Amino acid sequence: MKLEGRSFIGYTRGKGSDAIPGAGRNPRTGEFLEPSCIAATPEEVESACAMAASAFPVFSSLPGRERALFLRRIASNIESLADEIDARMTMETGLPAGRAQGERGRTCAQLRMFADVIDESSWVDARIDTAQPDRKPLPKPDLRSMWRPLGPVAVFCAGNFPLAFSVAGGDTASALAAGNPVIVNAHIAHPGVAELVGGAVAGAARDCGMPEGVFSLVYGNGFATGQALVRHPSIRAVGFTGSQRGGRALMEIAASRPVPIPVYAEMSSVNPVIILPGAAGERGDAIAEALHGAINLGAGQFCTAPGLILAPGDSALIAALTRRCVETPAAVMLNEGIARAYAAGVERLRTHPEVQTLAEGAEDTSIFAPARAALFATTSAALLADPVLQAEVFGPCALIVRYDALDELTAILTTLAGQLTVTVQAAEADLGTVQGLMEQLAQLAGRVIVNGVPTGVEVCDGMVHGGPFPATSDGRTTSVGPRSILRFCREVCYQNVPDALLPAVLRQEN
Amino acid sequence: MKLEGRSFIGYTRGKGSDAIPGAGRNPRTGEFLEPSCIAATPEEVESACAMAASAFPVFSSLPGRERALFLRRIASNIESLADEIDARMTMETGLPAGRAQGERGRTCAQLRMFADVIDESSWVDARIDTAQPDRKPLPKPDLRSMWRPLGPVAVFCAGNFPLAFSVAGGDTASALAAGNPVIVNAHIAHPGVAELVGGAVAGAARDCGMPEGVFSLVYGNGFATGQALVRHPSIRAVGFTGSQRGGRALMEIAASRPVPIPVYAEMSSVNPVIILPGAAGERGDAIAEALHGAINLGAGQFCTAPGLILAPGDSALIAALTRRCVETPAAVMLNEGIARAYAAGVERLRTHPEVQTLAEGAEDTSIFAPARAALFATTSAALLADPVLQAEVFGPCALIVRYDALDELTAILTTLAGQLTVTVQAAEADLGTVQGLMEQLAQLAGRVIVNGVPTGVEVCDGMVHGGPFPATSDGRTTSVGPRSILRFCREVCYQNVPDALLPAVLRQEN
Repeated sequence: MKLEGRSFIGYTRGKGSDAIPGAGRNPRTGEFLEPSCIAATPEEVESACAMAASAFPVFSSLPGRERALFLRRIASNIESLADEIDARMTMETGLPAGRAQGERGRTCAQLRMFADVIDESSWVDARIDTAQPDRKPLPKPDLRSMWRPLGPVAVFCAGNFPLAFSVAGGDTASALAAGNPVIVNAHIAHPGVAELVGGAVAGAARDCGMPEGVFSLVYGNGFATGQALVRHPSIRAVGFTGSQRGGRALMEIAASRPVPIPVYAEMSSVNPVIILPGAAGERGDAIAEALHGAINLGAGQFCTAPGLILAPGDSALIAALTRRCVETPAAVMLNEGIARAYAAGVERLRTHPEVQTLAEGAEDTSIFAPARAALFATTSAALLADPVLQAEVFGPCALIVRYDALDELTAILTTLAGQLTVTVQAAEADLGTVQGLMEQLAQLAGRVIVNGVPTGVEVCDGMVHGGPFPATSDGRTTSVGPRSILRFCREVCYQNVPDALLPAVLRQEN
Repeated sequence: MKLEGRSFIGYTRGKGSDAIPGAGRNPRTGEFLEPSCIAATPEEVESACAMAASAFPVFSSLPGRERALFLRRIASNIESLADEIDARMTMETGLPAGRAQGERGRTCAQLRMFADVIDESSWVDARIDTAQPDRKPLPKPDLRSMWRPLGPVAVFCAGNFPLAFSVAGGDTASALAAGNPVIVNAHIAHPGVAELVGGAVAGAARDCGMPEGVFSLVYGNGFATGQALVRHPSIRAVGFTGSQRGGRALMEIAASRPVPIPVYAEMSSVNPVIILPGAAGERGDAIAEALHGAINLGAGQFCTAPGLILAPGDSALIAALTRRCVETPAAVMLNEGIARAYAAGVERLRTHPEVQTLAEGAEDTSIFAPARAALFATTSAALLADPVLQAEVFGPCALIVRYDALDELTAILTTLAGQLTVTVQAAEADLGTVQGLMEQLAQLAGRVIVNGVPTGVEVCDGMVHGGPFPATSDGRTTSVGPRSILRFCREVCYQNVPDALLPAVLRQEN
């Protein structure tokens, strides 16, 4: 597929405004990647929203199995562009080819998972109360309810997941599965991947006879385009993965609209790992190895990377982690902006009066957007005193909090902001301690892990990828797994509606 | 039970500040009702919040059947105060004794419904993915997830439902059932009923050995107390029924907190009723009779009262409704404030240049807070041109919108704000028209009714009482029926957590 760098506005390509070009850039070399991409004009955004609104009643009324065909077609279209996508992603993100391959597989698997979900209709949770016309003192009407889609959804691509949480990623797949048109705001750091996948989705929509407007993809003019999307009256919900500042800005726009809409923003998490004394003593080195791997996986650019490690102050594990950090080679970050933000975050810790620098990894000045691994330490008293020590540093960096007595943990857990995950490393002798902490752990995070690392988000029914603010904007739900489809739905009840006029799944025959 | 007019702060009674007294008032006579009630001090609000936060981990970890006993005890305590409650409610609200009896029954039934829901654990929607340690390339961890409670909930009593949506009403019952402590903000118009029911809840909590702080009830100092509650960091969700202005104010406070929280506000709805030509011709008089009943039920003080009626411009039904309106006796409204707001709303329609006054009912100057039924008419062009004609007038008033051609309906449905309900009156000959409108109807409201009236909200599984903004703040959910328990919950996942440390419902034995 030849890249043009232009938006998809329904089934046509945007002309855009030549005044506002942008381009992907290889974070390993700094090389600009052709073609430039061109921001959608306000008129094109308007047109995408108007088409999405028109497509909605048609698309939302289709039988689930027809939308399932569309989702499966997206997956196979992506697969048919596999080599191009993998190559472009590797260039645009500096991630290894294996990662592109893996993430592509995950993306297609997610699309097919939602296709399976909507192939049959149990997901709509139909509830049927039949009439009791003779009930005294009042007759009972026939009442039937189900989940129905919200309306057009704006999806913001994630910088760190060019495939699985971007154009055809989890938010898009779940929103489309439920029956919502989607308008994607491309991420400026991987416009080529966005265009390839956008072409796969638009092509699938056309080939499957979907109403025009069911999918659009816009390149943005800075933040203005995305904000215009969130403000647009036709948009009924927002999916976002990114910084806390960006997410909070969208939440505020959404909340101050004449008609407020829900925002599902995944923002920031330091994914605390609590190492209890028994575990530190029994298998400190193994834990250090696993943690080191999790901290540095993908240059630490995962929302579930462990950034805060609570460890017994005297444990050998701290030295073991320090040793590994020193030996860590420099990594390529996703883009220049992220590399700068990482360097600033590391500097903030390095210069903090209550923080000790334990180690820094190798440098490599030949990399355009480099990250040097870093490991810091502080005390629980310092952590309790200064919220800035809780802030996420996105990249291969962790802060160890030394604790002396177990009762410090309760105070720390009370002080921590909401998280995607919280992990406990516990030996047999620690289980009583864990028991005492369990309710606090469950209140803190969307996922509580024992004896593991937080990285690795399995796509399955039991998964919850979410968590209290500021980990996400709405900690009630999950953005991974089949249940995430319900985020883009609302409950609708039909009272005494004649059978022929009901949605098929609520009819008598079902 | 002797009334004291003081808050319940856990298991003690508030002292309050004598500087800020308030009192119930009989809306029929204007008589002030003893005793005065005394606003909680900021320290008492703080204490209630602190106790709720402490009670939360204990209360949320109790087996469902223990919380079920608590809910059932609340119901039986309310029943043992039946005569006092009914008499006080009749005095404080001007509602007939039969209404008090009915609403009390509904309140106790709701409490018992939620007790039944949590007696067994299927409501938590446990999802269990067992480990596959040998899976290639990576082992799959054990993942188990379920709905867990959010934390302390602030519930605002509804002016128009002193029992079923107040101290021990739907929001409180569902929040407690899920495992959340509740702090109720009493409604200034029925403080005595609040105190009687508050005593029933506090007594049940103590008798059932619930942790102190699981329930508090505060009398407010104007809006300040409620706003302080919503701002308090221990509060994790809000339930509110009332005006759009009040609900939106709470939404804004909740959204601008350092940690935003969800608000479930039920605010305003005109519950449009569309009368199609066939139905108007076949049974116009029967429809007029049913609508007249629904408009005037409880002096029109139901959130589901039909306030906007779309009728063929030439239908005899309009005259039939007009005739009935003229014959309607004056009604007692809930309180002076509501009567004033109603009079202002009626005046707004009466003086609108595009509105014709069809009829007003009888006056009765002997009533302290009176309502005179009123019926107005306008054109679809006028409705489309002026959003003020869509605004709810809370009370026994309706605006008829005359339409000439069916295609005006689509334009009107596109223009209307979100609603709790939308109703279509259709004869056999109209069903094709209804079919064409079905998707628009479902997008507009939480409940779509054919050939009925919107009043009457059945408490059952199939019910959805909710709807797009501004009908509610969060149109994704229902506030009536067993599913409403999920509004006060979030999904939590447990990964590789040893069986003994899991919540009981996720353990292997289940």
